[in-house]
Amino acid sequence: MDKDDTLQRLKVVEGHVGGIVRMVENDAYCIDLLRQVQAVQAALNKISAKILDDHLHSCLISAVRGEDPDERERVLREITEVYTMATKV
Amino acid sequence: MDKDDTLQRLKVVEGHVGGIVRMVENDAYCIDLLRQVQAVQAALNKISAKILDDHLHSCLISAVRGEDPDERERVLREITEVYTMATKV
Amino acid sequence: MDKDDTLQRLKVVEGHVGGIVRMVENDAYCIDLLRQVQAVQAALNKISAKILDDHLHSCLISAVRGEDPDERERVLREITEVYTMATKV
Amino acid sequence: MDKDDTLQRLKVVEGHVGGIVRMVENDAYCIDLLRQVQAVQAALNKISAKILDDHLHSCLISAVRGEDPDERERVLREITEVYTMATKV
Repeated sequence: MDKDDTLQRLKVVEGHVGGIVRMVENDAYCIDLLRQVQAVQAALNKISAKILDDHLHSCLISAVRGEDPDERERVLREITEVYTMATKV
Repeated sequence: MDKDDTLQRLKVVEGHVGGIVRMVENDAYCIDLLRQVQAVQAALNKISAKILDDHLHSCLISAVRGEDPDERERVLREITEVYTMATKV
Repeated sequence: MDKDDTLQRLKVVEGHVGGIVRMVENDAYCIDLLRQVQAVQAALNKISAKILDDHLHSCLISAVRGEDPDERERVLREITEVYTMATKV
Repeated sequence: MDKDDTLQRLKVVEGHVGGIVRMVENDAYCIDLLRQVQAVQAALNKISAKILDDHLHSCLISAVRGEDPDERERVLREITEVYTMATKV
């Protein structure tokens, strides 16, 4: 179910980007283009948060409860990395 | 030329999002998905900056040099608005 | 007046950061710290938007209407640069 | 040690904001102000990432290994929340 929802949202984003392509082809006003690009970014932010939430409830729990300290460390470090990236994009 | 470059970049983003759809269908690792979504966001940031730059060199110059104070005010306000949105998405 | 408002907001931010220092000294819960840091970032976003708006209504108008094409180009380029940075911080 | 490092970084940020106050008082160029505000934001991003990393290695591990499913759920949800906020500020 979660996978279906993520797929659906990504396909909406893909269509949205296609719509912006057509706006550029039709010489839309620059600011309207910027607003649509920002709407796509906001949709991607929601998708990211959802993917992270799924990740925390599956892979993270397994890694933290598992026996392998390197695997646990890797999973924790990845979360900090994507958070760091999120504050930069 | 600028328009062609923007179109080309947007089509690359559209294809990139399609690639993420296939990654989700193939049950890719969550963190790899997040990294790809962030790469799309970074590409969209560059496209936005380019659209803004084109806008400043055309519509903004016309509006600031033009006779209509309301039009000038509208164009300046829009720039602050997209900047404000940019710091939130 | 605008300057006074910006100064006032910056001093509030300075005090807010001082408050976070005390929270860390008192071993506050990590997530509460993160929320306060994010509140500071949101306040800084508003201050930035205000400074940009003042800039557009003064320096930008002068540069666009002025005689010096290099100066105009510099001012336009700076706006794109701060926008680009804004999408990354 | 981690706490000392976070405190040190926060105090640097506090001093940096105080420096921006003085720049405004001295009528510094708007774009220079914006760049300094963005430098503060970048420093706060690093502090946030550090606080999150500490949190993952302490509270999160305890909650995921603990007996209380509500507590675990709360801690996981908080991480998604701060990530969501991070993509918006």
